[in-house]
Amino acid sequence: MRNTLRTAGTFLATVLLLNAIHNAQGDEGMWLFNDPPLQILKERYQFEPDASWLEHLQKSSIRFDNGGSGSFVSANGLILTNHHIGFDTLQKLSDAKHNYVKDGFLARTQAEEKPALDLELNVLMSIEDVTTRVNAVIKPGMTPEKAYQARRAVMADIEKESQDKTGLRSDVIELYGGAKFHLYRYKRYTDVRLVFAPEQQAAFFGGDPDNFEYPRYNLDVCFFRAYENGAPAKIEHYLKWSTQGVAENELVFVSGNPGHSNRQFTTAQLESMRDKQIPRSLQRLYRKEDLLTSWGARGDENERRVKKDLFSIANSRKALLGRLAGLMDPEFLSQKAHAEDELRKAAEANPAYTGLKDAWAQIQTSQQKLDQQVVPISLLEWGKGFDTPLFEIARTLVRHADEKIKPNGQRLPEFRDSNRDSLELGLFSDAPIYNDLETLKLSDALTWLTIEYGGPGNPIVKQLLAGKSPHERAVELISGTRLADVAFRKKLYALSPEEIAATHDPMIELARTIDSEARRLRKYEEEQAEVQTQAYGKINAARFALEKTHSYPDATFTLRLAFGTARGYQQDGENIPYETTIAGFYQRAEQHHNQPPFDLPSRWFARKDRLNLSTPFNFVSTADIIGGNSGSPVVNRAGEFVGIIFDGNIQSLVVGFAYSDKQSRAVSVCSQGIVEALKNVYDATELTDELLGNVAAPNQMTRVR
Amino acid sequence: MRNTLRTAGTFLATVLLLNAIHNAQGDEGMWLFNDPPLQILKERYQFEPDASWLEHLQKSSIRFDNGGSGSFVSANGLILTNHHIGFDTLQKLSDAKHNYVKDGFLARTQAEEKPALDLELNVLMSIEDVTTRVNAVIKPGMTPEKAYQARRAVMADIEKESQDKTGLRSDVIELYGGAKFHLYRYKRYTDVRLVFAPEQQAAFFGGDPDNFEYPRYNLDVCFFRAYENGAPAKIEHYLKWSTQGVAENELVFVSGNPGHSNRQFTTAQLESMRDKQIPRSLQRLYRKEDLLTSWGARGDENERRVKKDLFSIANSRKALLGRLAGLMDPEFLSQKAHAEDELRKAAEANPAYTGLKDAWAQIQTSQQKLDQQVVPISLLEWGKGFDTPLFEIARTLVRHADEKIKPNGQRLPEFRDSNRDSLELGLFSDAPIYNDLETLKLSDALTWLTIEYGGPGNPIVKQLLAGKSPHERAVELISGTRLADVAFRKKLYALSPEEIAATHDPMIELARTIDSEARRLRKYEEEQAEVQTQAYGKINAARFALEKTHSYPDATFTLRLAFGTARGYQQDGENIPYETTIAGFYQRAEQHHNQPPFDLPSRWFARKDRLNLSTPFNFVSTADIIGGNSGSPVVNRAGEFVGIIFDGNIQSLVVGFAYSDKQSRAVSVCSQGIVEALKNVYDATELTDELLGNVAAPNQMTRVR
Repeated sequence: MRNTLRTAGTFLATVLLLNAIHNAQGDEGMWLFNDPPLQILKERYQFEPDASWLEHLQKSSIRFDNGGSGSFVSANGLILTNHHIGFDTLQKLSDAKHNYVKDGFLARTQAEEKPALDLELNVLMSIEDVTTRVNAVIKPGMTPEKAYQARRAVMADIEKESQDKTGLRSDVIELYGGAKFHLYRYKRYTDVRLVFAPEQQAAFFGGDPDNFEYPRYNLDVCFFRAYENGAPAKIEHYLKWSTQGVAENELVFVSGNPGHSNRQFTTAQLESMRDKQIPRSLQRLYRKEDLLTSWGARGDENERRVKKDLFSIANSRKALLGRLAGLMDPEFLSQKAHAEDELRKAAEANPAYTGLKDAWAQIQTSQQKLDQQVVPISLLEWGKGFDTPLFEIARTLVRHADEKIKPNGQRLPEFRDSNRDSLELGLFSDAPIYNDLETLKLSDALTWLTIEYGGPGNPIVKQLLAGKSPHERAVELISGTRLADVAFRKKLYALSPEEIAATHDPMIELARTIDSEARRLRKYEEEQAEVQTQAYGKINAARFALEKTHSYPDATFTLRLAFGTARGYQQDGENIPYETTIAGFYQRAEQHHNQPPFDLPSRWFARKDRLNLSTPFNFVSTADIIGGNSGSPVVNRAGEFVGIIFDGNIQSLVVGFAYSDKQSRAVSVCSQGIVEALKNVYDATELTDELLGNVAAPNQMTRVR
Repeated sequence: MRNTLRTAGTFLATVLLLNAIHNAQGDEGMWLFNDPPLQILKERYQFEPDASWLEHLQKSSIRFDNGGSGSFVSANGLILTNHHIGFDTLQKLSDAKHNYVKDGFLARTQAEEKPALDLELNVLMSIEDVTTRVNAVIKPGMTPEKAYQARRAVMADIEKESQDKTGLRSDVIELYGGAKFHLYRYKRYTDVRLVFAPEQQAAFFGGDPDNFEYPRYNLDVCFFRAYENGAPAKIEHYLKWSTQGVAENELVFVSGNPGHSNRQFTTAQLESMRDKQIPRSLQRLYRKEDLLTSWGARGDENERRVKKDLFSIANSRKALLGRLAGLMDPEFLSQKAHAEDELRKAAEANPAYTGLKDAWAQIQTSQQKLDQQVVPISLLEWGKGFDTPLFEIARTLVRHADEKIKPNGQRLPEFRDSNRDSLELGLFSDAPIYNDLETLKLSDALTWLTIEYGGPGNPIVKQLLAGKSPHERAVELISGTRLADVAFRKKLYALSPEEIAATHDPMIELARTIDSEARRLRKYEEEQAEVQTQAYGKINAARFALEKTHSYPDATFTLRLAFGTARGYQQDGENIPYETTIAGFYQRAEQHHNQPPFDLPSRWFARKDRLNLSTPFNFVSTADIIGGNSGSPVVNRAGEFVGIIFDGNIQSLVVGFAYSDKQSRAVSVCSQGIVEALKNVYDATELTDELLGNVAAPNQMTRVR
């Protein structure tokens, strides 16, 4: 459930892990850049980064709006991220004759660089605490509905004022489940061009079987370049490239945008995840993975069209299965419950916090209410019952007509003035839409919706299917809509609510038909979110006062700083070394007779003798990362680029609930392996020169290894 | 739901299809051998098979107890079935060093033939109507429980008497949903040896994408030989081999064992299938397909171990999706409901059938009751919550101890004396069991069970997991049990209930723990089945009296006779020819660059120039078949073998609900293609000679083409 993936108070994991932190046993933390763990770094690693070190790393770091991270690696706007973050763009730029996902891509000149269709990058320029102003609008006795409206309005005001003043994208971020609100200002880049991608088979070698595994051999990299005014962006803050890589036990930092974590969830919310939300998500993922696999197997072009979706689905499925297994461990949840009890008891013993226990009950009750409504909410409001971008486009156009005539503060957040540029970037994207695939997906989604509502006899299903079978209805909708045409979307975007209501397009009509019910469900969801925000606010106020520990909020897909050391671990009695080499890449392919998904791209065979096979390829560290950190730069004490995060190992799948450095590891591609491959496999001379032109001078800073 | 797959009255489809039958528009029917469609054949095809023609075909036909059909094709016990029916045996005979599924198998001499581990074949020797005796025990006013017990007891008596008298396997079969009961006597063969199988890639060329598709190119054949007393069985009734194949529009017959159909279900039961049962089954199939695919991709040996299960799951998934799509067509179900109304009105207008409408309500109510209990029933009694043969073995041993001391008529049907030989054949099978795979499956099944019961807090889940996570519990059960050892099973099989209760084996203890709850659920299920049996009995009595049509019961995995003509159909405006050739096999591989699942086995490349590429390979006919018919012989008017059924096309997936000859077709391998491949690709000289030694003399009977 989207709502429960929101951040919450930090109290729980912190209580659990107090000992770990105070005894310096772990490298936990996805720290705020305006509240970094300076004391821990000093005590444990004798490292004291100054403000300019932090600012440089912060402004070299990039958020990819499609769910990942990256960094600037040259003064000319060169950007490095993961292949699996660039995948979306590679897929959208490909067609039946050009398969950049399968074959890779290299621009030898800037003229050959290919503009991404709808990619937005954000660089965090400043953070401002606006908690007081946000919370001032919440008055005692307000209903959740009124409170949510008031909160939404003040957040919209703050963002609008900031954007008008600075010209920067401005987002108010809810932290600690609502105990704090910070204003993040971002520089946006939307002219972003593809520079290089390897074959997916080199980037995602080992496929689903090796996904989340270690030792690993993936060249999971993709280069873009940011442009401004038609020329490469001039970048002040970018990372110098280290040709030294990472030594064992070396301290490293990760600067990126972890998406969601649940360390501060109450036990009741974790149980809801275990018993309701994850099983339900898995059910949908299984269904869709099967559908697309089966369709993709029918031919090369089908396979190309579903490749990106299938990757995402398989990745989510494996991640959720790992999380579910973690939650099914009775020991884990009983420890959580114990820690929760301790805090509750401490609060109850203190007269300042009488009645705090109600906060837990409020969260539990609101979660139960949400769980009871999750079927219609997910189908109608989250759009899972209409699984095609053509429906999303239709809904956006229908709602935009209604929302744009409201005052800014009263609109749904995605229609706020501060989000208009981003909204239009996505809405008017030229990304290809394939009617055959969309019919398949919509037909299956409508079937699923019918089942979830108990059968075709349900009144909502009757209204949606209009007397047809799910398949017939999907054919009618997809073949009848004109929304694949961007010019048509632009035309509708300008219309009034009355004009939209008079538009005859079956997908627009479907979105209109269901909109009042979908909005009703969304309002319900928002009210419960407000209940939880207030309850977590109370719990965290008590926690800060009673525990006085330095902490960090759950992940919110905003920039965080993590740290750790590059080191291996034990598994099934075996020592897993921290680093792999290019030689291991060839060996693993041989073990599997070079059969998919362990087949090397042919170029790697042809160039084997040019490569230094002992070059480090991938490595692990104890840095605290999670999904969203994909593409995050890994830097050393000198702030030099030594690697790029692309995965966690299988033991890290439960890290969303609690950090551990026993076996859980972040997996990166090493800076040395990247250059070795670019030079000797891909002949990417210009690119390598641009990177290596930025090599840090030796001994620029003392390196402790 | 198992229960709803039982046969029901024939009234519904017959009402719907009365016109079709009377107007001779279709070749519908899975006819009883003791009630064949003689008049239809005479009127429509001027064909009048005599009793010896029917007896010869009946006794040449074979039922494979693992869910398929086959036929004798030589006097020396040679048997032909599908590769996908022999698959189970091929898998069980293979190991890490011998992969007969992938590589195929050929015994050049009888000494080289490999005994199947646990295969039972049945040849139907006689049929006797025992309806009167079975129904005589049901007294007015009996509770469903008492009625079910009485029915079970008399069926056990009839079977025991027959077996004692004839030495033949004797099964009382419920037909027309309980309106008739017939005693089937079978000759059993359990010394069955593998003679030949092609590579699975030739048998299942095109894999999941081409499954249920046409045109098709599959050599889906597997040869066995029946032995008696250590020597090849001497067979009186076997099919002569036709080297002529099938001409377009030629009349053909199919003699096999269709498994289940639902043509006579009430609308309420069909709605339950659409809204509850099929979605639920799909959910489980998606989950398991994903689990096994993912595990199988980790290496060659993993892939080998899951190959058979994956095939079955993908096959069921595609079939169920087709059925669900059919039921989601509002036109289809409204036609069914209309026909049902017509019969109801006719019955109500006739004073002899007042109160008949209660029968529909009874079926509906009992189905609703079953639907409400389907979660625990399927998890605990059908064993879906313990997805490993080791649990099935444990349960059989636990129940056998309890059941064997009861009088024969009071036992659960699978423990009746008449079933003892079959029970022991399966229980003491040496089929390999792999602990890694069983741990994976059981861990996933226990996770699913936990979710289905609402979480680990449920008392039954608590009892089953014993304070552990599903994975830990699965590891403990699989690594701790000794039931993989057949000698240990034999030892436990001899024990008394008290001795079993004192046996310390974790899987035995699990089976004992859950047995009283599982038996309680089974009893509930049986009582509802009895309610339905009685209701369908009433409906069918009215139908027979009011409509006087010649009909056939829904499929019951017993021998049936179907007929039809070999002819193509139109699809998307294109004419699909009735027959494919070996040339098309090569062309389809080329279209897909010989990439899996469209890759030809290397032998087929090496031998291409020896083959007559214009040899017919696969063909379609309008014969009325369904799952279970796999491996059924297709014969011409002369009773000669012209092909072997292996699939239906995609349009046939709804055939379980209603027959149609518009596009729905049965797909067969042609006799000519089989011999061409055996001779020129596989060098199976001895086998070909044995088949062709039995070639029918030309003009043995007049062939009308």
